[in-house]
Amino acid sequence: MEKLLILKIGGSIIDHDEQLDSFLSDFSRLPQRKILIHGGGLIASRLSSKLGIEVKMHQGRRITDQESIDVVTMVYGGLINKKIVAKLQALNCRALGLSGADGGLIQAHKRPAQPIDYGFVGDIDQISAELLVQLVESELTVVLAPISCSPEGQLLNTNADTIAAAICQALTPYYHCSLLYIMDHPGVLRSVDDPDSLIAKITKSNYLRLVEEGVIGKGMLPKLENAFLAKEAGASLVKICDVKSSIAICLGDTGWGTELA
Amino acid sequence: MEKLLILKIGGSIIDHDEQLDSFLSDFSRLPQRKILIHGGGLIASRLSSKLGIEVKMHQGRRITDQESIDVVTMVYGGLINKKIVAKLQALNCRALGLSGADGGLIQAHKRPAQPIDYGFVGDIDQISAELLVQLVESELTVVLAPISCSPEGQLLNTNADTIAAAICQALTPYYHCSLLYIMDHPGVLRSVDDPDSLIAKITKSNYLRLVEEGVIGKGMLPKLENAFLAKEAGASLVKICDVKSSIAICLGDTGWGTELA
Repeated sequence: MEKLLILKIGGSIIDHDEQLDSFLSDFSRLPQRKILIHGGGLIASRLSSKLGIEVKMHQGRRITDQESIDVVTMVYGGLINKKIVAKLQALNCRALGLSGADGGLIQAHKRPAQPIDYGFVGDIDQISAELLVQLVESELTVVLAPISCSPEGQLLNTNADTIAAAICQALTPYYHCSLLYIMDHPGVLRSVDDPDSLIAKITKSNYLRLVEEGVIGKGMLPKLENAFLAKEAGASLVKICDVKSSIAICLGDTGWGTELA
Repeated sequence: MEKLLILKIGGSIIDHDEQLDSFLSDFSRLPQRKILIHGGGLIASRLSSKLGIEVKMHQGRRITDQESIDVVTMVYGGLINKKIVAKLQALNCRALGLSGADGGLIQAHKRPAQPIDYGFVGDIDQISAELLVQLVESELTVVLAPISCSPEGQLLNTNADTIAAAICQALTPYYHCSLLYIMDHPGVLRSVDDPDSLIAKITKSNYLRLVEEGVIGKGMLPKLENAFLAKEAGASLVKICDVKSSIAICLGDTGWGTELA
């Protein structure tokens, strides 16, 4: 089986043009087959605010009403996705920007309205692995926006970390998948302010202990849950790392980031 | 050679949900290979106005500054494109929504700033016929937003009629292409207010006469110029028609619209 890199980048890179350009330049030169999944960043919130759309939250999680899913579709599916694609094309990396609606790539259902109605938020039912494999084998780098679609044709806001894990799970029968979650920190840190406190490896058993000890905070929990799902589904490598170390890891340097084991 | 339908829809359909739904329902059932190119409509202007972006025009043509190309990318490349794709997917039509940046589909250059600087507007240099053929042969219906991309990775606002003609020109070596420009009127009319004054066929020679006589107005000139380019490049059929007759034409009923000959 061939190797496939699945990289997920979030707002911290997307919101900084210089950092994004530098990352895409390195990413474009990676010789492996690769898929890039991007989150949203502040652009959607900024646009919502400019449009006078009230951002509704419940316990720190955004509620996606009709106006908000339109903004998400415009910003994630349009602006960010096409900007990344255009930059990659200019770097001679053949990139195809898609949402989960395209070709039925990410089939989902609207999260049930009970107990909390999060609005147009999607929970993933199925990934079209066949189409992804076909595109990857055509030497196309798929750039994926965090939007899924219901069988009724409703676009749904969907967590990019969850999408990355689901894509990895769906493609492990076809590739030796390496999944990298790229964030601000160089990995999971024992002490958030100390980059030297990087935890090099987390197993499922010491993960639970780290949660109990409060080392792994609430914000990291869903990311790690997703990362473990991908690992358990058979991913060759799952790491949480920062943008700089992500490229080193892709080039085979193992001494970076936090590995899920 | 197989048949390929290339349909271009504009604002008049896109701005009316019911009309769009009805069209897509018919379109999804057409048995032929097909590509759908969509224009913009009023949504981009409405968003610009909400965002306080001044719409700059020169002799009736929009000037696309940085803010405007972002709006175009969001609305055409994101909102409209993904809405159409989601609706088609729900109708069991496998649709892939792309811009001209994706996979280098529409390579263009920024129109020279002299004599008038229209800003980020693209003139087409090349269509990646190979990628389009590959997608079409994978039983995917490409849904194309009117955005092209320069070799430097600059997204460019590009006329959807021109894109439709260029796609048709690029694909005539591979398919028997039928190109339909779908608009409000049932075709080119001798008298704009009289649907019975439809001109069934326009040749290059009577085209020039119709222009001289003032029958063909300024608004229709670029559309007809594009249509003739496609016809001269070897398209099997090029017609200008309304949404209702477009489906009849695709189903083989020849008695509708204005044919370019």
